[in-house]
Amino acid sequence: MTQPMRFLSDNTASICPEVLAAIAQANRDLVVAYGDDPWTRRLDEALGAFFGAPVRAFAVTTGTAANSLALAALSPPYGAIYCHPEAHIAVDECCAPGFFTGGAQLERIAGAHGKLTAEALTATLDAQHVSVHTIQPACVSISQATERGTAYRPEEVAAICKVAHGRGLHVHMDGSRFANAVTFLGCQPGDVTWRAGIDVLSFGATKSGALGAEAVVFFDLKLVRDFELRRKRAGHLLSKSRFIAAQLLAYVESGVWRRNAERANALARRLGEAAGERLLDPVEANEVFVELGAAGKASLRAAGFEFYDWGPPASGEARRSPPGIRTSATSRRCARL
Amino acid sequence: MTQPMRFLSDNTASICPEVLAAIAQANRDLVVAYGDDPWTRRLDEALGAFFGAPVRAFAVTTGTAANSLALAALSPPYGAIYCHPEAHIAVDECCAPGFFTGGAQLERIAGAHGKLTAEALTATLDAQHVSVHTIQPACVSISQATERGTAYRPEEVAAICKVAHGRGLHVHMDGSRFANAVTFLGCQPGDVTWRAGIDVLSFGATKSGALGAEAVVFFDLKLVRDFELRRKRAGHLLSKSRFIAAQLLAYVESGVWRRNAERANALARRLGEAAGERLLDPVEANEVFVELGAAGKASLRAAGFEFYDWGPPASGEARRSPPGIRTSATSRRCARL
Amino acid sequence: MTQPMRFLSDNTASICPEVLAAIAQANRDLVVAYGDDPWTRRLDEALGAFFGAPVRAFAVTTGTAANSLALAALSPPYGAIYCHPEAHIAVDECCAPGFFTGGAQLERIAGAHGKLTAEALTATLDAQHVSVHTIQPACVSISQATERGTAYRPEEVAAICKVAHGRGLHVHMDGSRFANAVTFLGCQPGDVTWRAGIDVLSFGATKSGALGAEAVVFFDLKLVRDFELRRKRAGHLLSKSRFIAAQLLAYVESGVWRRNAERANALARRLGEAAGERLLDPVEANEVFVELGAAGKASLRAAGFEFYDWGPPASGEARRSPPGIRTSATSRRCARL
Amino acid sequence: MTQPMRFLSDNTASICPEVLAAIAQANRDLVVAYGDDPWTRRLDEALGAFFGAPVRAFAVTTGTAANSLALAALSPPYGAIYCHPEAHIAVDECCAPGFFTGGAQLERIAGAHGKLTAEALTATLDAQHVSVHTIQPACVSISQATERGTAYRPEEVAAICKVAHGRGLHVHMDGSRFANAVTFLGCQPGDVTWRAGIDVLSFGATKSGALGAEAVVFFDLKLVRDFELRRKRAGHLLSKSRFIAAQLLAYVESGVWRRNAERANALARRLGEAAGERLLDPVEANEVFVELGAAGKASLRAAGFEFYDWGPPASGEARRSPPGIRTSATSRRCARL
Repeated sequence: MTQPMRFLSDNTASICPEVLAAIAQANRDLVVAYGDDPWTRRLDEALGAFFGAPVRAFAVTTGTAANSLALAALSPPYGAIYCHPEAHIAVDECCAPGFFTGGAQLERIAGAHGKLTAEALTATLDAQHVSVHTIQPACVSISQATERGTAYRPEEVAAICKVAHGRGLHVHMDGSRFANAVTFLGCQPGDVTWRAGIDVLSFGATKSGALGAEAVVFFDLKLVRDFELRRKRAGHLLSKSRFIAAQLLAYVESGVWRRNAERANALARRLGEAAGERLLDPVEANEVFVELGAAGKASLRAAGFEFYDWGPPASGEARRSPPGIRTSATSRRCARL
Repeated sequence: MTQPMRFLSDNTASICPEVLAAIAQANRDLVVAYGDDPWTRRLDEALGAFFGAPVRAFAVTTGTAANSLALAALSPPYGAIYCHPEAHIAVDECCAPGFFTGGAQLERIAGAHGKLTAEALTATLDAQHVSVHTIQPACVSISQATERGTAYRPEEVAAICKVAHGRGLHVHMDGSRFANAVTFLGCQPGDVTWRAGIDVLSFGATKSGALGAEAVVFFDLKLVRDFELRRKRAGHLLSKSRFIAAQLLAYVESGVWRRNAERANALARRLGEAAGERLLDPVEANEVFVELGAAGKASLRAAGFEFYDWGPPASGEARRSPPGIRTSATSRRCARL
Repeated sequence: MTQPMRFLSDNTASICPEVLAAIAQANRDLVVAYGDDPWTRRLDEALGAFFGAPVRAFAVTTGTAANSLALAALSPPYGAIYCHPEAHIAVDECCAPGFFTGGAQLERIAGAHGKLTAEALTATLDAQHVSVHTIQPACVSISQATERGTAYRPEEVAAICKVAHGRGLHVHMDGSRFANAVTFLGCQPGDVTWRAGIDVLSFGATKSGALGAEAVVFFDLKLVRDFELRRKRAGHLLSKSRFIAAQLLAYVESGVWRRNAERANALARRLGEAAGERLLDPVEANEVFVELGAAGKASLRAAGFEFYDWGPPASGEARRSPPGIRTSATSRRCARL
Repeated sequence: MTQPMRFLSDNTASICPEVLAAIAQANRDLVVAYGDDPWTRRLDEALGAFFGAPVRAFAVTTGTAANSLALAALSPPYGAIYCHPEAHIAVDECCAPGFFTGGAQLERIAGAHGKLTAEALTATLDAQHVSVHTIQPACVSISQATERGTAYRPEEVAAICKVAHGRGLHVHMDGSRFANAVTFLGCQPGDVTWRAGIDVLSFGATKSGALGAEAVVFFDLKLVRDFELRRKRAGHLLSKSRFIAAQLLAYVESGVWRRNAERANALARRLGEAAGERLLDPVEANEVFVELGAAGKASLRAAGFEFYDWGPPASGEARRSPPGIRTSATSRRCARL
C-alpha cells in the first residue's frame, strides 16, 4: 500500500471533475469583475430552482465566512446565538462569529448525537430573563448534517423554527454537509430549509467537491439588508467572482452534489456496518464515529489508516484512552476502502 | 409603613456619608484633569496598602466597565473566557465582554451555589482540543462573592489559579461584592487575591456605598500594558478623575468598606435565619435566595416587600411558579428589617 | 502668588455648588437602580423643556462616551463620519468612534477656525464615488463650540444639515461646550440644534460645572433604536443613575448652565482683548488661542501661568517655536485673572 | 467589432494558462487540509527565493483580506494608519481596515501622482501630539504600484521606511500590482521591499493572472505573532489551501509574473503615448489616466470602448464634466488594442 487511507477532513479530497471543468469553461473573455458577471448573475435563479423558492444567494470561499456573515445578518453585536456545544461555529471557527457580529455570544444547548431539540431550546429560552442588562436572544444555528454525522428530519427543523420564530428569533442552518443530509433523508432541498422555516442557509460545496465555494442563501429576503457591504468589508467579495459562481452552478446543475453525496454516504454506511457495536452515533451522512480504544487505534494506524482522535485530548500525566475516532468518508477517495 | 422594604439591587442604596464627604472635600482648587491629580496619584499606594502588595489600580465608574476592561487585558479577540453560567459577565452585561475584547467567547462551567471549581475547570480544559481552528483558552473569571451570595475560600481560589496558570491562563476576579466576601471570610484582602494567584481584580465600591467607583487592580503588573489606552477609547477615563479616586480612597482608608459589609452581611444572615428551610444557598455575603412559592411571594409583596423573582421567568401560557426570590441586604437600608 | 494660574482643560475646574448640592439632595432613600428612578425619569421632560421640543435623553459620564454612542447610532461599522480635522472625536478620543461603531472611518474636512462649512461638505460628498467597494457616507459631526473656540451660527448649522439630509446623512453635534456657544450666540438652545436640523446632540455639563454628566439627546426619536443596549454593553449605564441625572437636572433647571457660561465667556473675552494682535481665532466661547512665541511663553510660565502648547509639537533636532497656546477660561477659576 | 474594448479592472481578465494548469496539477491525491499540504509548505521557501530573504508567507484569496490582515498585524485597535488619500485601503475596501483592526483610523497624507512622500510623512508626524487621548501612530501603508499607476523608486521607499522606523512605526506595502511596478523599475523584488525597509507586503497575483491568490509576506518575522489565528477567525483560511498555494507557486516560479507584467506595461505605455498631452499621470505600470472631456469619452464609448470615469462623480443639478478616465491595461486582453 503506497498511500495512506485518509479518514480525515472531507477537505482532504480534491476538486471533482465537474467543478474543475466549470472553472476552465468560465476562463474565457473579459468579464466585469466583483460579481457583475453572467455566472454570478445566474446564482439566484439556479439556487432558487434548486430549492424551489425565490432566494438571494451570495458566494464566498469558506464555510467560516458563510456562517459568520450569515450570523452577522441575524444577530446584533449584543445578541445570543443558540447552538449545539459541538457546532462548528462554536468549536472550529476561532471565534469568527464574535468577530463578524462584533461581540455576540454563543449560547450552547446540549443534545444527543449533535442535535439541538425544540424542547431544549424552549427550556433554555424559558429560563432566560431578558432586560437591558442581558444578552439579547437573536437567533438559532443548527448544522445539517450535524457534527456527529446525523441529519435533522424536516419535522425536527420545523419544530425548532416554530419555537424560534415564536420568540422573534431567526434560524440559520450550517449546511456544510447539506448534500449528504438531503441525500440521506431522501427529501427535497426545500423540505429541510425554507419549508421548515429556515431563514438563512450556509450552503456548502467545498466539502463535496468544489475548490472553495459556499453560498449564503437567504430564504427570508428581508434579511439581506447590508449583506453585500459586510461581505466586502470582510474581504470576501472575490474580484474574479465568476470562478466561484461557476463552481456553485456546476455543483447544483450537473447533479454532482447528489452523486458525490450518495457515494460518500454509501461508503460511510459500509464503515459503520463494519464498526458494529463500536459505533457511537447513527451513520446518516458521511461521518463515522467509532469507539476503538488505544490498542485498536494503534493497530489501525500501523496498517496505514489515518483518522482523527475525537473526544477529549490526553492532558498532562493523566493520559486517558481517548474514547473514539472520527472518520470522514469523503466523496472521492473512499473507493479504496 | 410608608416606604417599601426594598430587597432589590445593592444599588438601590444611596451614597454612604464617608464617600459623599470625600467627594465634597476633593471639590476645591483647580487640579489637572484626566488622572494627573493628587487623589488619582495616590490610588496605587492606597490600594497597595489595602492588599499588602504592589499594584496598579485604575478607576472607572461601573462594574461592567471594570470587568470588561480587565477581561480585554487578559483575552485576545479569539479567546475563551471561562466562567460560571450565572456570572455577571455572562448574564448581566449585555455582551460587554464580547464588545471590549473584540469577539471573545464566554465558556460556561457549571457548579453548585454559583461556584466554579478547580476540578470542573480541569475537566473542561482537558476536554478541549486547541488548534488554529478553535477558540483559544485565555482566562478564567470568578466572582467574589458569587452571584449566589457565597464566598470562595482562599484555598478554592488558589486551586483554580493553579489549574489556570498551569495551562497558561490568567485569572480575573469580579469583586463587585469583594468587601462582603472578605468580611465573611475573616481574612485579609490579599488572601483571596494575589496570595491565591489572582492576576486582576475588579474591585467594587459602588455596591457598598460609593456613588460610582470601581477599580481595576492589577497584581500581575506586566498585564497592564495598554490598559490606559483601552480605558480611554471606551470613554471610561473621567475628566474629573479626582472625584472617582477620592471615593475609592475614602472607601478603603476610612474602613467603611468593612463597616458597611459587616452590617449588610449581618442583616442578610438574619434574613437567612428567618428563611430556615426555604433557603436555597448558604448566606455568606449580602444576598439571600429563598424558595417562597407563588403564594408566599404574593403575600410578602402585599405587605410592602419588594424583591426580585429569580430563576426562570414565566413564559406564555405555561406559567410556572418561580422557584425563588433574591434579596439583597444592602449596607444602609436593611436596618429597617 | 501661591497658586498657579491654570489655563488648561475646562476640567481642571471643580464641581459648581448647584450641581454638588443636587447630588447631596438626591442622596436619600432607596430608589430603583439603573435608571428607573425619579431623577432619570424626568430627564426627557426637563431637557425637552430646555430645548423646546420632544427629546429622548440618555445620561452618561464622559464626553467620549456621549460622542461615540451617538455616532454608533448614526453610522454602521462601514460608515464614513465627516468631521473637521481638529474635532475632538478625531484628535482626542483614542479611536473611540472606531471602537463603538465597529470600524467606521473619520473623513476630515478642513475649514478655518475649526469650522466645517456646507460648501466644503458638498464638495467632499460630490467627489466621492459610492459603491459596494467604498466606505458608505453615514453622518456628519460638528462641534459647538468648535475646538478653536468659535461658535456655529444657526444658519451655518442649518446649511450643513440641509446638505447632509439631502444626501441621506444624519448630523451629530458635539456640544461639550454647548452652553458657552449658546450664551455667546444669544439664541435659544433649540435654535442651533433641532430647529437647524441637528439629529443628535452630545450635551455636555462636565466642562461647565458637573462632576461628570453628559446627555446624549435625540431630536430625531426614530434614531434611538437600540441605544440603551449599546450604552449598557459599553459599561455606561450607571447603577446609581440618579446621581448623574440629578446633575443634569440641576444644570439646566437652575440656570447655572448660563451663569457659568457667561462668566467663562466674559473672562475669555478679557484675555482675548489683552492678546490683541496675537489672537489666532475669534474669541466666541471660553477658549483663547494666542501666538506668543517661545520667549513670551517662557516668561508667562515663569510668572506662574500654566497653559497648553498648541499646534505642532517640537520634534527631534528640528525644534521649532510652537505658534500658539491654548487657554481655557473655565467657569470657576478665572475670577482670579 | 463583436466584443467591447474593456479598460476596466485588471480583474476582468481571466486566469492565465500557467496558473490554471497549476490548479489542475495540484488536483490529485488526498492531502491534509487547511495548509498542511506540500504546496503550502513550500510557500515560505519559494517566496523567500523570489525576494532573496527569509520570509513567512500566508495565502489568502483577496487583496482586501491581505491588506486588512497585514494592517491588523501592525496596528492596535486604537492605531493610526498613514496612507495616501487615494489608497485602495482608504477608498475601495468598505472600511475593512477598521473591521480587521477593531477600530483603527486611516490618516490621509496627500501627494502627487498617488505617492506619499517621506517629507509629507515627517510633517504629519511632527504635527501630531501623542498622549493617552490621541489616536496612536502605528504604521504606514503605501501602494506599489500606486493607485495612479506610478511606481515608488527603491530610494523613495527607503526614505519613507526610515522616517517610519525612526518613530517606531511599521511599514506595509499594498502590492496588488507589485509585478508591474518591479518590472517597470527593472529592479529585484527585494529592492523595493525588505532592502528598503518594508515590514509586510500584500503580494498580489490575482490582478496579474491568478484565479484568486494573494500572499501576506512578512519580512520582519517577529510581526507574524497571531496572524494565523486572525486569518482563521476572518474566514480566510481555505480548507483546500493547496489550490491557493499552487497558484502562487506557479506565479513566481514559472516567471509568468514578469511576462504578464511586461506585456501589460507595454500595452499601457502604447496607450499613454497615444494619449499624449491628455495624460494625467506618468505611465509606469499598467494604469493609464487620461483627460478626455465629455465629448471624447462619449465618442470612445460609441466606438465600443469601456472604461471607468475617474475623479469626482457628477452630483445632482451641478453636473460637471468629469476630468478623466482610468484604463487598466491588463495582461491578457489588451492585445486587441
